[in-house]
Amino acid sequence: MLGNFTYCNPTKLYFGKNAVEGLNEELPKYGKNVLLVYGGGSIKKNGIYDKVSEILKKHGKTVHEDAGVMPNPTTDKLKEGIARARAAKADLILAVGGGSVIDYAKAVSVSVNCKEDPWEKYYLRMEDPDCAVLPVGAVLTMVGTGSEMNGGSVITNRAQKMKIGKVFGPEVFPKFATLDPEYTFTLPRYQMIAGFYDILCHIHEQYFSGTDDNTSDYVMEGLMRSLIHSADIAVKDPLDYEARSNIMWTATWALNTFVAMGKDTDWEVHMIGQAVGAHTDATHGMTLAAVTPAYFKHILPYGKEKFARYAVNVWGVNAGGKTQLQVAEEGIAALEKWMRGIGLVMDLKTLGVTEEMIPSVAYSTLIMTGGYKVLNREDILSILKESL
Amino acid sequence: MLGNFTYCNPTKLYFGKNAVEGLNEELPKYGKNVLLVYGGGSIKKNGIYDKVSEILKKHGKTVHEDAGVMPNPTTDKLKEGIARARAAKADLILAVGGGSVIDYAKAVSVSVNCKEDPWEKYYLRMEDPDCAVLPVGAVLTMVGTGSEMNGGSVITNRAQKMKIGKVFGPEVFPKFATLDPEYTFTLPRYQMIAGFYDILCHIHEQYFSGTDDNTSDYVMEGLMRSLIHSADIAVKDPLDYEARSNIMWTATWALNTFVAMGKDTDWEVHMIGQAVGAHTDATHGMTLAAVTPAYFKHILPYGKEKFARYAVNVWGVNAGGKTQLQVAEEGIAALEKWMRGIGLVMDLKTLGVTEEMIPSVAYSTLIMTGGYKVLNREDILSILKESL
Repeated sequence: MLGNFTYCNPTKLYFGKNAVEGLNEELPKYGKNVLLVYGGGSIKKNGIYDKVSEILKKHGKTVHEDAGVMPNPTTDKLKEGIARARAAKADLILAVGGGSVIDYAKAVSVSVNCKEDPWEKYYLRMEDPDCAVLPVGAVLTMVGTGSEMNGGSVITNRAQKMKIGKVFGPEVFPKFATLDPEYTFTLPRYQMIAGFYDILCHIHEQYFSGTDDNTSDYVMEGLMRSLIHSADIAVKDPLDYEARSNIMWTATWALNTFVAMGKDTDWEVHMIGQAVGAHTDATHGMTLAAVTPAYFKHILPYGKEKFARYAVNVWGVNAGGKTQLQVAEEGIAALEKWMRGIGLVMDLKTLGVTEEMIPSVAYSTLIMTGGYKVLNREDILSILKESL
Repeated sequence: MLGNFTYCNPTKLYFGKNAVEGLNEELPKYGKNVLLVYGGGSIKKNGIYDKVSEILKKHGKTVHEDAGVMPNPTTDKLKEGIARARAAKADLILAVGGGSVIDYAKAVSVSVNCKEDPWEKYYLRMEDPDCAVLPVGAVLTMVGTGSEMNGGSVITNRAQKMKIGKVFGPEVFPKFATLDPEYTFTLPRYQMIAGFYDILCHIHEQYFSGTDDNTSDYVMEGLMRSLIHSADIAVKDPLDYEARSNIMWTATWALNTFVAMGKDTDWEVHMIGQAVGAHTDATHGMTLAAVTPAYFKHILPYGKEKFARYAVNVWGVNAGGKTQLQVAEEGIAALEKWMRGIGLVMDLKTLGVTEEMIPSVAYSTLIMTGGYKVLNREDILSILKESL
């Protein structure tokens, strides 16, 4: 049954070719000091940095740089960002990059005026900000996390070997985001494919939970079918605008809170994947891919009906004359075959996990309660070993 | 191909049982004077009026009433509403009702400070407001139009026999809306069923346009399947909360602009239906139902591929060994069978249209250009005659 909820998603999106020009409409709304946040510098090679700088200059902004945001942004980097934002007296944080950069920009935005340790307050105690939050804007260059239109922010504490995602409310959502599918064209193949699976996994996490039959389930089946269709095209031709634009749009809707409204969600694959990420710094989407088949096989007996529905409605499995379990298993097999086909990493060893690491990874995995089975430590150990 | 677009939908929704309590969070944001807009008084019988009044009183609001909004709100009523809002010095317009009441509240909101004739400026010349717009809030009591989360506003000019829908931008969207599925339980069966078809028709209008293969098409197939599934349950048991809540949620997403982003749309069935409505005052959803089969048969030769896809993905038609045309025709037949099954009015005579009226209805039908065939007057005459 659709439970009670409140929905509000005020982010303004500029989508399409040259979407970055949307900055011309947005920048006049904010003060002079802009903290420009970006990653390892790929935006300097592909021209995006120059384009954004040109628009910032046109609007008379004073640009303060905060570069070097890593794929799994750390608490140490966050401290640096807070100091930079304070020194700059930033009026706006402009994040140019993918999910990590935008996640990090949100973390800075809620921390600049925070009197406590933000890691402890927001990520360990899961509290909400009670201080002034800086506005964040985003120029998206890599799809997957949906961070451009939600309150999600994942931060890694390397000392504690913990990677934790906090979901903030609409006041922390980016005020605006520009989504130009062509900005994703230069992404290396490995990151592109990892992003595709990250999107699918976001939908899985929200789909495989609950026994009801909500509008969201039907919408998610549509989003998954669209993603699979377009990913198959993009893997063959990464420059196919139609495929890449539909993937970008699907990614936003897979995780902008809409499909989660009023229903239970799981997120256990992300918890295991994030524990792997905290130990190896491996690409997020690949950590999710490597543990998914083993996880699904573990929870299948408790969610047979939904897995069978998934097999038919997403993978087109013919259910005729088969048991529910057979249909469900054929669905998971179809998923695995597709995952291998597009080139995802399907084992943890390749991602740098050793047998010795497994107890520590298992220990630092958060246990969620919304899935078809609440895992125990033994389950997590088994899943990690089977995924090795 | 997904075209360029800007997306922003800032409406805050409170969804579920007792959603009206969301007013407690929203009312403090606005001044003292509230213009309470509602329809024929059914909210006085089912207790909703008392509940809303109690919450308004608790927040110390001065309530100014504007009752008697009719199913097809007229320019005459609009004049009355503008005068009332001005006299009340309204700080907020609170619309309690279905799409007509909310559409009307938006029309008043953009007209109170408008120096020109709002019918001419907004509905005939399709201009946007250049004056201060009053904030609108909504307590939804009938699903279908999506008006609770969009900028749509349909107004009827009886003298000119014209019923025109204007789509305003996000500044005219309701600031908030409460959606309690139980508030729709007391709706008469005729209106309930008409609302179901209005929702399906909204999706049709956006689905049957363009030759691309967008995320939106997959999402719309999901929304249609969900609607058909839940409507079948609700027709048997109108008090089924799960079905009614999913229908309510589907209705909002069918027309809150999301699925139309970056793609062409049609809306010709609405144009014909609105012309019928302007002549007969018939229930909106029924006017759409009565003309749909004839319209689809007229445009089928120009959109065979999409109609065949619709047949398979929405109605489960088995395409094996059949031509595209046969599959497409089976889809339309399945739709018609379902429409008759849930009790929709499938002819214009029952809605009060006479043979003599047809030329005038055809003449006042606006011609849209986004569908599979741009109709001419002869086409419209044929469709109306076939629908009689």
